[in-house]
Amino acid sequence: MVLVIYLMVKKNIVVVLGPAGCGKTSLVASLGKWIEKNQFMKPGYVNLDPGAVFTPYVADVDIRSYVRAEEVMTRERLGPNGALIRSIEIAMGNLDDIVAKIASLKNPYILVDTPGQMELFLFRDFGVEFVEKMKKYDYVMGIVIFDPTLASRPQDILSLKLLATIAQLRLGIDTIPVVNKGDLGREKLEIMQKLLTSPEQLADEVKRVEGLLGEISEKMIQILEEYRFATRIPIVSSLTWEGLEKLYDMIHEIFCTCGDLT
Amino acid sequence: MVLVIYLMVKKNIVVVLGPAGCGKTSLVASLGKWIEKNQFMKPGYVNLDPGAVFTPYVADVDIRSYVRAEEVMTRERLGPNGALIRSIEIAMGNLDDIVAKIASLKNPYILVDTPGQMELFLFRDFGVEFVEKMKKYDYVMGIVIFDPTLASRPQDILSLKLLATIAQLRLGIDTIPVVNKGDLGREKLEIMQKLLTSPEQLADEVKRVEGLLGEISEKMIQILEEYRFATRIPIVSSLTWEGLEKLYDMIHEIFCTCGDLT
Repeated sequence: MVLVIYLMVKKNIVVVLGPAGCGKTSLVASLGKWIEKNQFMKPGYVNLDPGAVFTPYVADVDIRSYVRAEEVMTRERLGPNGALIRSIEIAMGNLDDIVAKIASLKNPYILVDTPGQMELFLFRDFGVEFVEKMKKYDYVMGIVIFDPTLASRPQDILSLKLLATIAQLRLGIDTIPVVNKGDLGREKLEIMQKLLTSPEQLADEVKRVEGLLGEISEKMIQILEEYRFATRIPIVSSLTWEGLEKLYDMIHEIFCTCGDLT
Repeated sequence: MVLVIYLMVKKNIVVVLGPAGCGKTSLVASLGKWIEKNQFMKPGYVNLDPGAVFTPYVADVDIRSYVRAEEVMTRERLGPNGALIRSIEIAMGNLDDIVAKIASLKNPYILVDTPGQMELFLFRDFGVEFVEKMKKYDYVMGIVIFDPTLASRPQDILSLKLLATIAQLRLGIDTIPVVNKGDLGREKLEIMQKLLTSPEQLADEVKRVEGLLGEISEKMIQILEEYRFATRIPIVSSLTWEGLEKLYDMIHEIFCTCGDLT
Protein backbone atom coordinates (compact mmCIF):
# COMPACT_ATOMS: atom_id res chain seq x y z
CA MET A 1 0.00 0.00 0.00
CA VAL A 2 2.79 2.37 0.94
CA LEU A 3 4.51 1.50 -2.30
CA VAL A 4 1.41 2.31 -4.34
CA ILE A 5 1.05 5.74 -2.72
CA TYR A 6 4.75 6.38 -3.24
CA LEU A 7 4.54 5.56 -6.91
CA MET A 8 1.70 8.00 -7.36
CA VAL A 9 3.73 10.96 -6.08
CA LYS A 10 4.79 12.98 -9.08
CA LYS A 11 8.09 14.77 -9.26
CA ASN A 12 8.61 18.31 -10.49
CA ILE A 13 10.64 18.52 -13.69
CA VAL A 14 12.07 21.98 -14.48
CA VAL A 15 13.32 22.25 -18.07
CA VAL A 16 15.83 25.11 -18.45
CA LEU A 17 15.76 26.66 -21.95
CA GLY A 18 17.35 29.65 -23.62
CA PRO A 19 19.51 30.72 -26.58
CA ALA A 20 23.14 29.61 -26.83
CA GLY A 21 25.37 31.29 -24.26
CA CYS A 22 22.58 32.68 -22.05
CA GLY A 23 23.79 30.74 -19.00
CA LYS A 24 21.49 27.68 -18.83
CA THR A 25 24.11 25.33 -17.38
CA SER A 26 25.25 27.82 -14.71
CA LEU A 27 21.65 28.48 -13.68
CA VAL A 28 20.92 24.74 -13.38
CA ALA A 29 23.95 24.39 -11.08
CA SER A 30 23.27 27.48 -8.94
CA LEU A 31 19.52 26.92 -8.64
CA GLY A 32 20.23 23.33 -7.63
CA LYS A 33 22.67 24.41 -4.92
CA TRP A 34 20.22 27.07 -3.74
CA ILE A 35 17.43 24.49 -3.39
CA GLU A 36 19.75 22.11 -1.56
CA LYS A 37 20.82 24.79 0.90
CA ASN A 38 17.51 26.58 1.45
CA GLN A 39 14.85 23.94 0.90
CA PHE A 40 16.76 21.07 2.50
CA MET A 41 16.22 18.68 -0.40
CA LYS A 42 18.58 17.37 -3.03
CA PRO A 43 17.44 18.05 -6.60
CA GLY A 44 18.28 15.67 -9.42
CA TYR A 45 20.27 16.86 -12.44
CA VAL A 46 19.78 15.91 -16.09
CA ASN A 47 22.01 16.95 -18.97
CA LEU A 48 20.37 16.82 -22.41
CA ASP A 49 23.20 18.60 -24.28
CA PRO A 50 25.21 16.16 -26.42
CA GLY A 51 27.68 18.98 -27.13
CA ALA A 52 28.44 19.83 -23.47
CA VAL A 53 32.15 19.70 -22.62
CA PHE A 54 31.87 20.32 -18.87
CA THR A 55 28.92 20.56 -16.48
CA PRO A 56 29.37 22.18 -13.03
CA TYR A 57 26.90 19.65 -11.54
CA VAL A 58 27.00 15.87 -11.36
CA ALA A 59 24.36 14.67 -13.82
CA ASP A 60 22.13 11.82 -12.60
CA VAL A 61 21.08 11.21 -16.20
CA ASP A 62 23.31 12.38 -19.04
CA ILE A 63 22.56 12.30 -22.76
CA ARG A 64 26.31 11.93 -23.33
CA SER A 65 26.06 8.31 -22.15
CA TYR A 66 24.27 7.80 -25.48
CA VAL A 67 25.83 10.34 -27.83
CA ARG A 68 28.57 12.96 -27.87
CA ALA A 69 28.55 15.62 -30.58
CA GLU A 70 32.34 15.70 -30.91
CA GLU A 71 32.50 11.95 -31.53
CA VAL A 72 29.72 12.26 -34.12
CA MET A 73 31.78 14.94 -35.93
CA THR A 74 34.75 12.61 -36.22
CA ARG A 75 32.83 9.41 -36.88
CA GLU A 76 30.40 10.78 -39.47
CA ARG A 77 32.74 13.48 -40.83
CA LEU A 78 30.27 16.28 -40.15
CA GLY A 79 30.73 19.95 -39.35
CA PRO A 80 29.57 21.27 -35.96
CA ASN A 81 26.05 22.13 -37.21
CA GLY A 82 25.48 18.78 -38.86
CA ALA A 83 26.95 16.89 -35.90
CA LEU A 84 24.65 18.65 -33.41
CA ILE A 85 21.57 17.88 -35.51
CA ARG A 86 22.70 14.27 -36.05
CA SER A 87 23.38 13.86 -32.30
CA ILE A 88 19.82 14.88 -31.51
CA GLU A 89 18.55 12.37 -34.08
CA ILE A 90 20.59 9.64 -32.38
CA ALA A 91 19.31 10.73 -28.96
CA MET A 92 15.73 10.47 -30.26
CA GLY A 93 16.32 6.71 -30.64
CA ASN A 94 17.16 6.52 -26.94
CA LEU A 95 14.42 8.82 -25.72
CA ASP A 96 12.31 6.14 -23.99
CA ASP A 97 15.35 4.97 -22.08
CA ILE A 98 16.33 8.52 -21.06
CA VAL A 99 12.79 9.32 -19.88
CA ALA A 100 12.53 6.03 -17.94
CA LYS A 101 15.80 6.82 -16.15
CA ILE A 102 14.58 10.29 -15.16
CA ALA A 103 11.22 8.86 -14.08
CA SER A 104 13.02 6.43 -11.76
CA LEU A 105 14.89 9.20 -9.89
CA LYS A 106 13.54 9.84 -6.39
CA ASN A 107 14.40 13.55 -6.01
CA PRO A 108 11.33 15.84 -5.65
CA TYR A 109 12.83 18.37 -8.09
CA ILE A 110 14.69 17.51 -11.28
CA LEU A 111 16.56 20.26 -13.11
CA VAL A 112 16.96 19.58 -16.83
CA ASP A 113 19.76 21.30 -18.76
CA THR A 114 18.90 21.42 -22.48
CA PRO A 115 21.10 21.57 -25.63
CA GLY A 116 23.43 24.57 -25.82
CA GLN A 117 21.66 25.56 -29.04
CA MET A 118 18.07 26.01 -27.84
CA GLU A 119 16.55 25.37 -31.26
CA LEU A 120 17.71 21.73 -31.23
CA PHE A 121 15.27 21.23 -28.36
CA LEU A 122 12.56 23.80 -29.08
CA PHE A 123 12.40 23.80 -32.88
CA ARG A 124 12.85 20.12 -33.57
CA ASP A 125 10.78 17.09 -32.45
CA PHE A 126 13.17 16.32 -29.60
CA GLY A 127 11.77 18.77 -27.03
CA VAL A 128 8.12 18.12 -27.91
CA GLU A 129 8.54 14.34 -27.62
CA PHE A 130 10.70 14.53 -24.49
CA VAL A 131 8.08 16.63 -22.67
CA GLU A 132 5.18 14.52 -23.93
CA LYS A 133 6.77 11.30 -22.68
CA MET A 134 7.97 12.87 -19.43
CA LYS A 135 4.50 14.22 -18.59
CA LYS A 136 3.19 10.66 -18.30
CA TYR A 137 5.30 10.30 -15.15
CA ASP A 138 5.84 13.76 -13.72
CA TYR A 139 4.84 17.44 -13.79
CA VAL A 140 6.89 19.40 -16.30
CA MET A 141 7.47 23.16 -16.57
CA GLY A 142 10.05 25.40 -18.21
CA ILE A 143 12.29 28.38 -17.62
CA VAL A 144 13.26 30.51 -20.64
CA ILE A 145 16.44 32.55 -20.09
CA PHE A 146 17.68 35.66 -21.91
CA ASP A 147 20.97 37.27 -21.10
CA PRO A 148 20.86 41.04 -20.45
CA THR A 149 22.38 42.00 -23.81
CA LEU A 150 19.29 40.34 -25.30
CA ALA A 151 16.88 42.26 -23.08
CA SER A 152 18.22 45.81 -23.15
CA ARG A 153 15.66 47.27 -25.60
CA PRO A 154 11.88 47.23 -24.99
CA GLN A 155 11.35 45.15 -28.14
CA ASP A 156 13.83 42.57 -26.81
CA ILE A 157 11.80 42.14 -23.63
CA LEU A 158 8.67 41.55 -25.71
CA SER A 159 10.72 39.07 -27.79
CA LEU A 160 11.60 37.18 -24.59
CA LYS A 161 7.92 37.06 -23.61
CA LEU A 162 7.00 35.81 -27.08
CA LEU A 163 9.77 33.18 -26.95
CA ALA A 164 8.40 31.97 -23.59
CA THR A 165 4.96 31.85 -25.28
CA ILE A 166 6.36 29.81 -28.18
CA ALA A 167 7.94 27.35 -25.71
CA GLN A 168 4.59 27.09 -23.92
CA LEU A 169 2.74 26.52 -27.21
CA ARG A 170 5.14 23.97 -28.66
CA LEU A 171 5.89 22.02 -25.48
CA GLY A 172 2.50 22.40 -23.79
CA ILE A 173 4.00 23.44 -20.45
CA ASP A 174 4.02 26.56 -18.28
CA THR A 175 7.14 28.65 -18.71
CA ILE A 176 8.73 31.45 -16.71
CA PRO A 177 10.79 34.02 -18.67
CA VAL A 178 13.95 34.95 -16.76
CA VAL A 179 16.70 37.50 -17.36
CA ASN A 180 20.10 36.18 -16.36
CA LYS A 181 21.81 39.19 -14.86
CA GLY A 182 25.43 38.40 -15.61
CA ASP A 183 27.66 41.29 -14.65
CA LEU A 184 25.28 44.05 -15.66
CA GLY A 185 25.83 47.59 -14.32
CA ARG A 186 23.46 48.93 -11.65
CA GLU A 187 22.11 51.81 -13.75
CA LYS A 188 21.25 49.69 -16.79
CA LEU A 189 19.73 47.12 -14.46
CA GLU A 190 17.33 49.64 -12.91
CA ILE A 191 15.98 50.73 -16.30
CA MET A 192 15.54 47.09 -17.28
CA GLN A 193 13.87 46.21 -13.99
CA LYS A 194 11.19 48.84 -14.60
CA LEU A 195 10.43 47.45 -18.07
CA LEU A 196 10.41 43.88 -16.76
CA THR A 197 8.00 44.49 -13.90
CA SER A 198 5.69 47.12 -15.36
CA PRO A 199 3.74 45.98 -18.44
CA GLU A 200 2.30 49.52 -18.72
CA GLN A 201 5.76 51.04 -18.98
CA LEU A 202 6.85 48.33 -21.42
CA ALA A 203 3.76 48.91 -23.58
CA ASP A 204 4.51 52.63 -23.48
CA GLU A 205 8.09 52.13 -24.63
CA VAL A 206 7.32 49.51 -27.24
CA LYS A 207 4.79 51.86 -28.88
CA ARG A 208 7.80 53.82 -30.13
CA VAL A 209 8.95 50.90 -32.29
CA GLU A 210 8.60 52.11 -35.89
CA GLY A 211 5.33 51.72 -37.76
CA LEU A 212 2.67 49.05 -37.42
CA LEU A 213 5.00 46.79 -35.49
CA GLY A 214 4.81 49.20 -32.52
CA GLU A 215 1.02 49.01 -32.51
CA ILE A 216 1.01 45.21 -32.77
CA SER A 217 3.58 44.98 -29.97
CA GLU A 218 1.52 47.18 -27.68
CA LYS A 219 -1.56 45.02 -28.22
CA MET A 220 0.40 41.82 -27.66
CA ILE A 221 1.68 43.10 -24.33
CA GLN A 222 -1.89 44.00 -23.37
CA ILE A 223 -3.09 40.46 -24.11
CA LEU A 224 -0.24 38.86 -22.16
CA GLU A 225 -1.01 41.22 -19.28
CA GLU A 226 -4.77 40.58 -19.45
CA TYR A 227 -4.14 36.87 -18.91
CA ARG A 228 -1.38 37.59 -16.37
CA PHE A 229 0.92 35.71 -18.69
CA ALA A 230 4.69 36.19 -18.56
CA THR A 231 4.08 39.42 -16.64
CA ARG A 232 6.67 38.91 -13.92
CA ILE A 233 10.21 38.43 -15.18
CA PRO A 234 12.73 37.84 -12.39
CA ILE A 235 16.36 38.91 -12.80
CA VAL A 236 18.66 36.20 -11.49
CA SER A 237 22.40 35.78 -11.02
CA SER A 238 24.15 32.43 -10.91
CA LEU A 239 27.14 34.21 -9.40
CA THR A 240 25.56 36.07 -6.46
CA TRP A 241 22.41 33.89 -6.19
CA GLU A 242 20.35 37.10 -6.49
CA GLY A 243 16.76 36.41 -7.52
CA LEU A 244 16.99 32.61 -7.02
CA GLU A 245 14.54 32.66 -4.09
CA LYS A 246 12.00 34.57 -6.16
CA LEU A 247 12.50 32.17 -9.09
CA TYR A 248 12.07 29.16 -6.79
CA ASP A 249 8.85 30.67 -5.39
CA MET A 250 7.49 31.10 -8.92
CA ILE A 251 8.42 27.51 -9.84
CA HIS A 252 6.83 26.25 -6.63
CA GLU A 253 3.67 28.28 -7.27
CA ILE A 254 3.26 26.81 -10.76
CA PHE A 255 3.62 23.26 -9.43
CA CYS A 256 1.13 23.98 -6.61
CA THR A 257 -1.52 25.29 -8.98
CA CYS A 258 -0.73 22.26 -11.17
CA GLY A 259 -1.25 23.84 -14.51
CA ASP A 260 -3.94 26.36 -13.54
CA LEU A 261 -1.87 28.98 -15.33
CA THR A 262 -2.27 27.36 -18.71
CA MET B 1 26.94 62.62 -62.27
CA VAL B 2 26.05 59.17 -63.57
CA LEU B 3 28.28 57.71 -60.90
CA VAL B 4 26.45 59.64 -58.15
CA ILE B 5 23.06 58.40 -59.29
CA TYR B 6 24.39 54.88 -59.53
CA LEU B 7 25.69 54.98 -55.95
CA MET B 8 22.31 56.09 -54.68
CA VAL B 9 20.53 52.99 -56.02
CA LYS B 10 19.93 50.69 -53.10
CA LYS B 11 20.13 46.92 -53.40
CA ASN B 12 17.66 44.47 -51.92
CA ILE B 13 19.15 42.29 -49.20
CA VAL B 14 17.15 39.17 -48.32
CA VAL B 15 18.26 37.56 -45.04
CA VAL B 16 17.22 33.89 -44.85
CA LEU B 17 16.58 32.74 -41.26
CA GLY B 18 15.20 29.62 -39.61
CA PRO B 19 16.01 26.90 -37.05
CA ALA B 20 18.82 24.42 -37.65
CA GLY B 21 18.05 21.93 -40.40
CA CYS B 22 15.03 23.77 -41.86
CA GLY B 23 16.68 24.15 -45.27
CA LYS B 24 18.03 27.73 -45.32
CA THR B 25 21.03 26.95 -47.51
CA SER B 26 19.00 24.98 -50.07
CA LEU B 27 16.41 27.75 -50.28
CA VAL B 28 19.12 30.39 -50.84
CA ALA B 29 20.49 28.30 -53.71
CA SER B 30 17.14 27.46 -55.32
CA LEU B 31 15.63 30.94 -54.93
CA GLY B 32 18.82 32.37 -56.45
CA LYS B 33 18.59 30.05 -59.44
CA TRP B 34 14.88 30.82 -59.84
CA ILE B 35 15.58 34.58 -59.89
CA GLU B 36 18.39 34.10 -62.41
CA LYS B 37 16.20 32.03 -64.72
CA ASN B 38 12.91 33.92 -64.40
CA GLN B 39 13.87 37.51 -63.64
CA PHE B 40 16.95 37.60 -65.87
CA MET B 41 19.23 39.03 -63.22
CA LYS B 42 22.04 37.44 -61.25
CA PRO B 43 21.60 37.63 -57.49
CA GLY B 44 24.60 37.89 -55.16
CA TYR B 45 25.20 35.24 -52.50
CA VAL B 46 26.48 35.77 -48.96
CA ASN B 47 27.31 33.02 -46.48
CA LEU B 48 27.27 34.09 -42.81
CA ASP B 49 27.58 30.56 -41.36
CA PRO B 50 31.08 29.95 -39.93
CA GLY B 51 30.12 26.28 -39.43
CA ALA B 52 29.07 25.60 -43.04
CA VAL B 53 30.88 22.66 -44.63
CA PHE B 54 29.48 22.98 -48.15
CA THR B 55 27.31 25.58 -49.87
CA PRO B 56 25.49 24.74 -53.14
CA TYR B 57 26.04 28.32 -54.37
CA VAL B 58 29.24 30.26 -54.99
CA ALA B 59 29.39 32.85 -52.20
CA ASP B 60 30.41 36.37 -53.26
CA VAL B 61 31.09 37.18 -49.62
CA ASP B 62 31.82 34.38 -47.17
CA ILE B 63 32.23 34.64 -43.39
CA ARG B 64 34.57 31.63 -43.63
CA SER B 65 37.23 33.91 -45.14
CA TYR B 66 37.42 35.30 -41.59
CA VAL B 67 36.55 32.39 -39.32
CA ARG B 68 35.76 28.69 -39.55
CA ALA B 69 34.05 26.97 -36.60
CA GLU B 70 35.98 23.73 -37.01
CA GLU B 71 39.32 25.52 -36.86
CA VAL B 72 38.17 27.41 -33.76
CA MET B 73 37.33 24.06 -32.10
CA THR B 74 40.86 22.79 -32.65
CA ARG B 75 42.70 26.04 -31.98
CA GLU B 76 40.82 27.05 -28.85
CA ARG B 77 40.01 23.51 -27.68
CA LEU B 78 36.28 24.14 -27.55
CA GLY B 79 33.27 21.87 -28.01
CA PRO B 80 30.92 22.51 -30.96
CA ASN B 81 28.63 24.85 -28.95
CA GLY B 82 31.48 26.94 -27.59
CA ALA B 83 33.23 27.05 -30.97
CA LEU B 84 30.09 28.30 -32.76
CA ILE B 85 29.58 31.07 -30.18
CA ARG B 86 33.29 31.99 -30.27
CA SER B 87 33.24 32.04 -34.10
CA ILE B 88 30.41 34.58 -34.05
CA GLU B 89 32.38 36.71 -31.56
CA ILE B 90 35.36 36.63 -33.92
CA ALA B 91 33.12 37.52 -36.89
CA MET B 92 31.78 40.50 -34.93
CA GLY B 93 35.30 41.96 -35.07
CA ASN B 94 35.16 41.77 -38.88
CA LEU B 95 31.60 42.98 -39.29
CA ASP B 96 32.42 46.38 -40.82
CA ASP B 97 34.58 44.67 -43.40
CA ILE B 98 31.91 42.05 -44.21
CA VAL B 99 29.21 44.72 -44.58
CA ALA B 100 31.44 46.90 -46.78
CA LYS B 101 32.10 43.95 -49.09
CA ILE B 102 28.37 43.22 -49.43
CA ALA B 103 27.65 46.93 -49.97
CA SER B 104 30.14 46.97 -52.85
CA LEU B 105 28.40 44.14 -54.73
CA LYS B 106 26.49 45.30 -57.81
CA ASN B 107 23.72 42.65 -57.94
CA PRO B 108 20.18 44.04 -57.44
CA TYR B 109 19.28 41.17 -55.09
CA ILE B 110 21.59 39.72 -52.44
CA LEU B 111 20.59 36.47 -50.73
CA VAL B 112 22.11 36.09 -47.26
CA ASP B 113 22.47 32.61 -45.76
CA THR B 114 22.66 32.85 -41.94
CA PRO B 115 24.29 30.58 -39.31
CA GLY B 116 23.00 26.98 -39.24
CA GLN B 117 21.91 27.58 -35.66
CA MET B 118 19.47 30.49 -36.06
CA GLU B 119 19.92 31.73 -32.49
CA LEU B 120 23.54 32.70 -33.16
CA PHE B 121 22.16 35.33 -35.52
CA LEU B 122 18.77 36.15 -34.01
CA PHE B 123 19.44 35.86 -30.27
CA ARG B 124 22.90 37.38 -30.09
CA ASP B 125 24.16 40.85 -31.08
CA PHE B 126 25.44 39.57 -34.43
CA GLY B 127 22.17 39.73 -36.39
CA VAL B 128 21.04 43.03 -34.88
CA GLU B 129 24.36 44.74 -35.66
CA PHE B 130 24.68 43.19 -39.12
CA VAL B 131 21.24 44.45 -40.14
CA GLU B 132 21.77 47.86 -38.56
CA LYS B 133 25.04 48.39 -40.45
CA MET B 134 23.68 46.90 -43.68
CA LYS B 135 20.63 49.20 -43.64
CA LYS B 136 22.89 52.22 -44.07
CA TYR B 137 23.63 50.99 -47.59
CA ASP B 138 20.72 48.85 -48.71
CA TYR B 139 17.13 47.72 -48.06
CA VAL B 140 17.03 44.67 -45.81
CA MET B 141 14.23 42.16 -45.24
CA GLY B 142 13.98 38.62 -43.90
CA ILE B 143 12.51 35.20 -44.60
CA VAL B 144 11.82 32.91 -41.62
CA ILE B 145 11.62 29.22 -42.55
CA PHE B 146 10.01 26.32 -40.69
CA ASP B 147 10.17 22.79 -41.95
CA PRO B 148 6.81 20.94 -42.15
CA THR B 149 7.47 18.78 -39.08
CA LEU B 150 7.57 22.10 -37.18
CA ALA B 151 4.31 23.32 -38.67
CA SER B 152 2.03 20.31 -38.46
CA ARG B 153 -0.01 21.39 -35.42
CA PRO B 154 -2.02 24.67 -35.30
CA GLN B 155 0.07 25.88 -32.32
CA ASP B 156 3.23 25.32 -34.39
CA ILE B 157 1.95 27.60 -37.15
CA LEU B 158 1.26 30.30 -34.56
CA SER B 159 4.79 29.67 -33.22
CA LEU B 160 6.18 30.31 -36.72
CA LYS B 161 4.22 33.56 -36.95
CA LEU B 162 5.49 34.61 -33.53
CA LEU B 163 9.06 33.71 -34.50
CA ALA B 164 8.72 35.88 -37.62
CA THR B 165 7.41 38.64 -35.32
CA ILE B 166 10.41 38.24 -32.99
CA ALA B 167 12.77 38.49 -35.98
CA GLN B 168 10.95 41.63 -37.09
CA LEU B 169 11.13 43.14 -33.59
CA ARG B 170 14.77 42.31 -32.92
CA LEU B 171 16.16 43.09 -36.37
CA GLY B 172 13.77 45.91 -37.29
CA ILE B 173 13.01 44.47 -40.75
CA ASP B 174 9.97 43.03 -42.51
CA THR B 175 9.89 39.25 -42.48
CA ILE B 176 7.96 36.65 -44.44
CA PRO B 177 7.23 33.33 -42.68
CA VAL B 178 7.69 30.39 -45.05
CA VAL B 179 7.07 26.67 -44.74
CA ASN B 180 9.72 24.62 -46.51
CA LYS B 181 7.79 21.74 -47.99
CA GLY B 182 10.44 19.06 -48.10
CA ASP B 183 8.92 15.76 -49.15
CA LEU B 184 5.59 16.22 -47.43
CA GLY B 185 2.64 14.02 -48.46
CA ARG B 186 -0.20 15.61 -50.44
CA GLU B 187 -2.89 14.96 -47.79
CA LYS B 188 -0.93 16.45 -44.91
CA LEU B 189 -0.02 19.36 -47.16
CA GLU B 190 -3.65 20.19 -47.88
CA ILE B 191 -4.58 20.35 -44.19
CA MET B 192 -1.55 22.55 -43.55
CA GLN B 193 -2.32 24.79 -46.52
CA LYS B 194 -5.76 25.58 -45.10
CA LEU B 195 -4.30 26.57 -41.73
CA LEU B 196 -1.55 28.61 -43.39
CA THR B 197 -3.85 30.64 -45.62
CA SER B 198 -6.96 31.02 -43.47
CA PRO B 199 -6.37 32.91 -40.21
CA GLU B 200 -10.02 32.22 -39.26
CA GLN B 201 -9.51 28.48 -39.51
CA LEU B 202 -6.19 28.72 -37.66
CA ALA B 203 -7.82 30.77 -34.87
CA ASP B 204 -10.57 28.18 -34.70
CA GLU B 205 -8.12 25.30 -34.35
CA VAL B 206 -5.79 27.05 -31.94
CA LYS B 207 -8.72 27.75 -29.58
CA ARG B 208 -8.61 24.05 -28.73
CA VAL B 209 -5.15 24.38 -27.18
CA GLU B 210 -5.60 23.62 -23.48
CA GLY B 211 -6.58 26.35 -21.03
CA LEU B 212 -5.75 30.04 -21.13
CA LEU B 213 -3.06 29.49 -23.74
CA GLY B 214 -5.76 28.69 -26.31
CA GLU B 215 -7.54 31.98 -25.59
CA ILE B 216 -4.30 33.99 -25.76
CA SER B 217 -3.37 32.28 -29.02
CA GLU B 218 -6.71 33.08 -30.60
CA LYS B 219 -6.35 36.75 -29.70
CA MET B 220 -2.78 36.88 -30.99
CA ILE B 221 -3.86 35.50 -34.33
CA GLN B 222 -6.64 38.11 -34.48
CA ILE B 223 -4.12 40.93 -33.90
CA LEU B 224 -1.72 39.61 -36.56
CA GLU B 225 -4.68 39.33 -38.94
CA GLU B 226 -6.01 42.81 -38.09
CA TYR B 227 -2.69 44.31 -39.15
CA ARG B 228 -2.37 41.91 -42.09
CA PHE B 229 0.84 40.70 -40.52
CA ALA B 230 2.33 37.30 -41.32
CA THR B 231 -1.07 36.30 -42.71
CA ARG B 232 0.11 34.71 -45.93
CA ILE B 233 2.55 31.86 -45.48
CA PRO B 234 3.78 30.35 -48.75
CA ILE B 235 4.81 26.70 -48.94
CA VAL B 236 7.99 26.37 -50.98
CA SER B 237 10.14 23.53 -52.23
CA SER B 238 13.83 23.85 -53.04
CA LEU B 239 13.56 20.58 -54.91
CA THR B 240 10.61 21.21 -57.26
CA TRP B 241 10.78 25.07 -57.12
CA GLU B 242 7.10 25.03 -56.09
CA GLY B 243 6.09 28.29 -54.42
CA LEU B 244 9.27 30.18 -55.38
CA GLU B 245 7.41 32.54 -57.74
CA LYS B 246 4.91 33.41 -55.01
CA LEU B 247 7.75 33.95 -52.53
CA TYR B 248 9.60 36.17 -55.02
CA ASP B 249 6.43 38.22 -55.57
CA MET B 250 6.07 38.74 -51.81
CA ILE B 251 9.73 39.78 -51.50
CA HIS B 252 9.34 42.13 -54.44
CA GLU B 253 6.15 43.61 -52.97
CA ILE B 254 7.87 44.36 -49.66
CA PHE B 255 10.76 46.11 -51.41
CA CYS B 256 8.35 48.10 -53.58
CA THR B 257 6.35 49.37 -50.63
CA CYS B 258 9.74 50.12 -49.03
CA GLY B 259 8.89 49.35 -45.47
CA ASP B 260 5.23 50.40 -45.55
CA LEU B 261 4.40 47.07 -43.94
CA THR B 262 6.24 47.80 -40.70
